Amino acid sequence: MEQQQINLTKLLANWCADYTLRFPASAIRSAELAIADTVGCILAGVEDPASVKAGNTIPDEKSGPSRKSNSVRHAFPVSARDAAAVNGCAAHARELDDNVMPAVIHSSAVLTPALFALGEEIGATGADVVRAFIVGMEVNAQIGKLVNPKHYESGWHTISTIGVIGTAAACASLMKLDSEKIIHAMSLAFSMAAGSKLQFGAEAKPMHSGFSAQGGIWAAQLAQHGFEGNKDVLQGKWSFQELYAGGESDGVFQPSLFPDALLAIDEFSPVAKLYPCCGSAHLGIDAIRALQARQAFDLDDIIRIDVHMSKIMTDNVRYKIPANEKEARFSMPYCAAVTLVHGMPRLSHFTADAISQPDPAVARLMPLVQTHVRNPSPEVIARKLIFQGDCLVGVHLKNGEVLKQIAEHPKGCRENPLTAEERHTKFIDCVTPCLGDARTNEIYSILLEFSGLSAIDEVTRTFARNQGHS
Amino acid sequence: MEQQQINLTKLLANWCADYTLRFPASAIRSAELAIADTVGCILAGVEDPASVKAGNTIPDEKSGPSRKSNSVRHAFPVSARDAAAVNGCAAHARELDDNVMPAVIHSSAVLTPALFALGEEIGATGADVVRAFIVGMEVNAQIGKLVNPKHYESGWHTISTIGVIGTAAACASLMKLDSEKIIHAMSLAFSMAAGSKLQFGAEAKPMHSGFSAQGGIWAAQLAQHGFEGNKDVLQGKWSFQELYAGGESDGVFQPSLFPDALLAIDEFSPVAKLYPCCGSAHLGIDAIRALQARQAFDLDDIIRIDVHMSKIMTDNVRYKIPANEKEARFSMPYCAAVTLVHGMPRLSHFTADAISQPDPAVARLMPLVQTHVRNPSPEVIARKLIFQGDCLVGVHLKNGEVLKQIAEHPKGCRENPLTAEERHTKFIDCVTPCLGDARTNEIYSILLEFSGLSAIDEVTRTFARNQGHS
Repeated sequence: MEQQQINLTKLLANWCADYTLRFPASAIRSAELAIADTVGCILAGVEDPASVKAGNTIPDEKSGPSRKSNSVRHAFPVSARDAAAVNGCAAHARELDDNVMPAVIHSSAVLTPALFALGEEIGATGADVVRAFIVGMEVNAQIGKLVNPKHYESGWHTISTIGVIGTAAACASLMKLDSEKIIHAMSLAFSMAAGSKLQFGAEAKPMHSGFSAQGGIWAAQLAQHGFEGNKDVLQGKWSFQELYAGGESDGVFQPSLFPDALLAIDEFSPVAKLYPCCGSAHLGIDAIRALQARQAFDLDDIIRIDVHMSKIMTDNVRYKIPANEKEARFSMPYCAAVTLVHGMPRLSHFTADAISQPDPAVARLMPLVQTHVRNPSPEVIARKLIFQGDCLVGVHLKNGEVLKQIAEHPKGCRENPLTAEERHTKFIDCVTPCLGDARTNEIYSILLEFSGLSAIDEVTRTFARNQGHS
Repeated sequence: MEQQQINLTKLLANWCADYTLRFPASAIRSAELAIADTVGCILAGVEDPASVKAGNTIPDEKSGPSRKSNSVRHAFPVSARDAAAVNGCAAHARELDDNVMPAVIHSSAVLTPALFALGEEIGATGADVVRAFIVGMEVNAQIGKLVNPKHYESGWHTISTIGVIGTAAACASLMKLDSEKIIHAMSLAFSMAAGSKLQFGAEAKPMHSGFSAQGGIWAAQLAQHGFEGNKDVLQGKWSFQELYAGGESDGVFQPSLFPDALLAIDEFSPVAKLYPCCGSAHLGIDAIRALQARQAFDLDDIIRIDVHMSKIMTDNVRYKIPANEKEARFSMPYCAAVTLVHGMPRLSHFTADAISQPDPAVARLMPLVQTHVRNPSPEVIARKLIFQGDCLVGVHLKNGEVLKQIAEHPKGCRENPLTAEERHTKFIDCVTPCLGDARTNEIYSILLEFSGLSAIDEVTRTFARNQGHS
């Protein structure tokens, strides 16, 4: 029997519009942790040049009563779209934001700024935002299943391709739109889906999150006002699948959705980052850290470092000698050298000064790092790893010894999670420079109970430029 | 000898930033006519549901002093980006806006709203806007040469893929940015390039023009504030050419640019539309009109109408029985039937009422229209026609006679131009309902001398909602 053609857009929208669904506590907890982590990322990104410049394109002036949303670069509230653009850029600027499979997407860095900005405008509760957040994660993941790995491998940056569609669905469901309008929100977002991995290492990369957050809101607002698009855009001729993942669409992908299946946020837990650099460098960093924990060796004895990992990872962390802090975030040699010298990469290693005046030990080690493409073995493929491959690091010493270590589960994923203390420490590192010790801890406590908030302003006000940072 | 890899983004930006270039009078005249035509299209689209809904997502309230740009849906000036979004949507809503080869793009419908809105904000002169308009046409055309026909055939909607990049370059050059910043404007716009032909026949289609106009301005504003993207985005790995036109990029396309070559606006004159429907229907309409002019026949005698044209055209005008006025604009059967009955399609034929209560004669003829794919013969290919193919219409009569007519040059192109009177009549049809007779003629006169204006407000104020329309 032939499989029946389904309208995936409609199927997902129907699911998003089922406001009777009650999500499990595990999903709500994961969402709260991801939102808290992202608030940290947003406030860590306040002074990033990308956030500053993005903010400068939006006037900072008292304006009409419709502007209610707080931006990290503005003293006065701005429109929800503008706030989402600036805060979205800030969220992604330091490369500390989480990653979610199978869309391979920084979901939270788009969803949180978009839902916060829109939530401020419409007076959403914490529970409303958490529900919409889980919905956005779900739509992203299902579209990811439809088009990946081809989509990501081709060079598309999922945060602003898949991400704008998932965010539009999330925003539309935060507004409690009906299924028909959610279809149109997704369709309009499909008309904004853009962004190439060519921007990895450029300032434009974090702006992809800003574009996507504002676009998701706008698509939902247009749909709210009755604006319509084609109602079947994910599969078939000229569809998202065809244009963004090549070739003909077969139209038979049918997702299994909660409550019949696990929620995506439960099946593919967000991978919270401990290191502020491209996720594709993380397994290499993990392997080096594991080596260091296992065995003492003198950095001066190192004559070569080999990092073997999948082509997707080597392609992403492609800068051999980074010219600036943005390229450094996408440089395996830099991240490996910093890890060897400092134990792990931290925010302080990705500043203009750190790159222009490099640490001598880092500068010596960096050119010794070679990256190699490693095709995953059938056994590795069978393990269904987060990045669809593992990473083998070999540290060659003067005495001929080669220290080898394989990493499979990046720090921050379910198999290798951040501890509660690591999460808290990360938040403090990110937020204290903006808000100071007391307010930082206070906000963190509030965030850990986020779904109980009757209004989200208590958190979103921390974004306002006059609320503790300049 | 191997051809040298060039950085096309840089080459185009360098050209855009050469503010010493003096363009020929022919180009300036073409730009003025295209701008005048587009002002007509914008004002014709004021009450289109798409423009109304797009406007409703932007508050109509008195706001800060930075908001200086007039939108057709707002009583008070809004931001340049917001005005461009609404006016861009209006410009494309009625399908009366021009088409330009080889990008196969409604260039003017994006460039005019963007440059007007930005021009209002920064106090541009008419000559400034005309120069930037010609620049945007050029960039669109060169990118079109790079990626077409594959890009357009694949299903991308050029107005918001190529168009946002050309518009960003035009806006950046209206701001008189240097070459480096124009590169970044184009790169940031590349990160917003989106839109599928799947939206043909949906309300989302005109919004592609709105998205593109606002995106072009935003990209230029970001670049103005020092925001940077990858500096080589048009060719090579993960580039526009690779992601949006498939396969590997060879990196050897090198455009010949004015003054060494003709300006694109002179080489590929904008094809001004007389009929408010998809350009792909125009040759069929032209052929039917030519038949009618040549020979009288009774509509009741028609038993069948065959329209043979290229696959691109048949794919675009694909609705056999249009469900609404939006689909009617992309329906060859509807456009052909209306032409047979009424002599040519006019704005009044594309309203919700006209479709829901169809003219009986049109309703009888519509199902008799069959479209067929016609591959252009080598002789036709050699003629390098606007749409890369001709159109053969055969009208079958009861008596066995088959009236045949071929159309090659769509009405509005250089070989078959609108007369000055047809242009004026079109403008009057579009604008009088908004502005009334006297003001319409006054504005038309001003537009015909547009490049002499010391400030563009005299024209842009006609967009303000309280300036003559509600």
